[in-house]
Amino acid sequence: MLDTFYQILMSRDFEENRGFVCSEIFTNNSIDGVYTHGVNRFPRFVSNVDTGHVKPHESPTLKHKFAAIEQWDGHLGPGPSNAVYATDIVIQLASEFGIGCVSLANTNHWMRGGSYGWQAAKKGYVFIGWTNTIGNMPAWGAIDSRLGNNPLVIAMPFQDEAIVLDMAMSQYSFGAMELAQMKKERFPVFGGYDRDGELTNDPSAILDSRRPLPIGFWKGAGLSLLLDILSTVLSGGWSTSEISKREVEYGLSQVFLAIDLKRLGNHSIIPKLLQQIIDDYHQSKPQENGKKIYYPGERVLETRKKNLAEGIPVLNSIWEQIVRLG
Amino acid sequence: MLDTFYQILMSRDFEENRGFVCSEIFTNNSIDGVYTHGVNRFPRFVSNVDTGHVKPHESPTLKHKFAAIEQWDGHLGPGPSNAVYATDIVIQLASEFGIGCVSLANTNHWMRGGSYGWQAAKKGYVFIGWTNTIGNMPAWGAIDSRLGNNPLVIAMPFQDEAIVLDMAMSQYSFGAMELAQMKKERFPVFGGYDRDGELTNDPSAILDSRRPLPIGFWKGAGLSLLLDILSTVLSGGWSTSEISKREVEYGLSQVFLAIDLKRLGNHSIIPKLLQQIIDDYHQSKPQENGKKIYYPGERVLETRKKNLAEGIPVLNSIWEQIVRLG
Repeated sequence: MLDTFYQILMSRDFEENRGFVCSEIFTNNSIDGVYTHGVNRFPRFVSNVDTGHVKPHESPTLKHKFAAIEQWDGHLGPGPSNAVYATDIVIQLASEFGIGCVSLANTNHWMRGGSYGWQAAKKGYVFIGWTNTIGNMPAWGAIDSRLGNNPLVIAMPFQDEAIVLDMAMSQYSFGAMELAQMKKERFPVFGGYDRDGELTNDPSAILDSRRPLPIGFWKGAGLSLLLDILSTVLSGGWSTSEISKREVEYGLSQVFLAIDLKRLGNHSIIPKLLQQIIDDYHQSKPQENGKKIYYPGERVLETRKKNLAEGIPVLNSIWEQIVRLG
Repeated sequence: MLDTFYQILMSRDFEENRGFVCSEIFTNNSIDGVYTHGVNRFPRFVSNVDTGHVKPHESPTLKHKFAAIEQWDGHLGPGPSNAVYATDIVIQLASEFGIGCVSLANTNHWMRGGSYGWQAAKKGYVFIGWTNTIGNMPAWGAIDSRLGNNPLVIAMPFQDEAIVLDMAMSQYSFGAMELAQMKKERFPVFGGYDRDGELTNDPSAILDSRRPLPIGFWKGAGLSLLLDILSTVLSGGWSTSEISKREVEYGLSQVFLAIDLKRLGNHSIIPKLLQQIIDDYHQSKPQENGKKIYYPGERVLETRKKNLAEGIPVLNSIWEQIVRLG
């Protein structure tokens, strides 16, 4: 998969390292079971390159720096390689100042935000990051989509791996809705409104009305607005409102925060603190007898192991589409 | 109200400034309409002082510092004055480094987290802060409460005032549930599960089962866990698991982040950027004709104006209880 992706990106004139980084992100997302932002999404990524919305030659440049804060311009380069770069930079800032903040204007879809959480956490850093998106969710009490679903990522190093939360502000991401629609499945809980304004768990009805449900109703809508505001203000880039003036989603604004655990006074006891929290969490009494209670990122480890051993399951129709891009 | 609160705290041997800061927080929360964490909560605060869980003589001391990160010990001092202090400190760090991070171990309930968002934003700083709590919400798929509802606050200066999001990870805070129960009201959306494991909007049934609904189901439960993990790791204080070993909630862990907008390269155009976002947001098409779409904190301005002009509405039973504390 990695090799196929890489060959296709090379044929689009990607610089070698950037092409490899992007291929790796798409492959790793697939290994981790996030197919919607891995193999299933690769054709759309290549299409965005072909239409010129993603510029394979561009990489971020520094616009402004003040101590632990840096503001970068992504020049509409590939979202994954721009985000990997920003994560590397914010880690360096965190080492120097304890905490660092990197913002990225004019970038593109980073695919699975959790990737950058894993990247930072595996090196010993707390990661908090988020992106804005094109308008795809209404404000609370509204019916037109002026908010993005603006995924938020929080990651913490744990047991040589990480605890990684990666959540969009809509109950289900558009990737999840499209996948459920493709598989003709309904959601276990309400995912949005149908055209008549009734709550529904039918992904097709939500994709049709364009009214996904914000998590926690007004709360997720409010959090989405604040994440967009922070992305826009901190990066000086486009807001969801500005991005939504275009037909295609590009030119996103992102924020990357990192904290260096080695700079904390209690550094040596952090593994023990975390183990106590997770042990207590795992002792939760499940609603269904014998059902395991997972922490965010825990299932990924099982999927990763399985997919590395048995191979990544790929829909034939998707793979055929990808091979034709070569 | 301010004078009454102050006299009562003075009778409990508060140091003058700390007593004033706490009285002001309770009064301002009431002026802003957050009665559950203002006047209605004051008797419980005094009770926690009387039982020794809140120590009026204590103020935070610095445990560890590295550049833009400081870790403080709250010594079980009053939650509101400790949080006001931490907010002042993190603002100074942000001025120096662009971004700052202050953590506070061994502190107490800060009442309304939004207070500290307003405090920082009115001085020109972005604020992101959160606290852990005693266990009061189950993990997703579980029935026993091993997670806190861990409120998260994000604030941004706007038009000499602020946009302030202040949200607990449960769909309704316990304060809101108690208030609705007292007024014999049902919630407009599901707020949790009853004893039979069915979703319900009856606050009494949720207070009875102790199973409030996390915002966005598994998402809010995951975010709650990560906020607790960050609070505990960054402060070296107690986790929700540790706090829950006690009968009464005390000894909380909190995190305060601030960013100094003056240190950004795009500082001068931020008001314009924000105005564009809010103008677009206000143009949302409401589900009910003519209904205004508010941003987080916008309603507070209306309530504040009304209560300052007409006085703060207070339940007689609550005020009688408070007067008896004098």
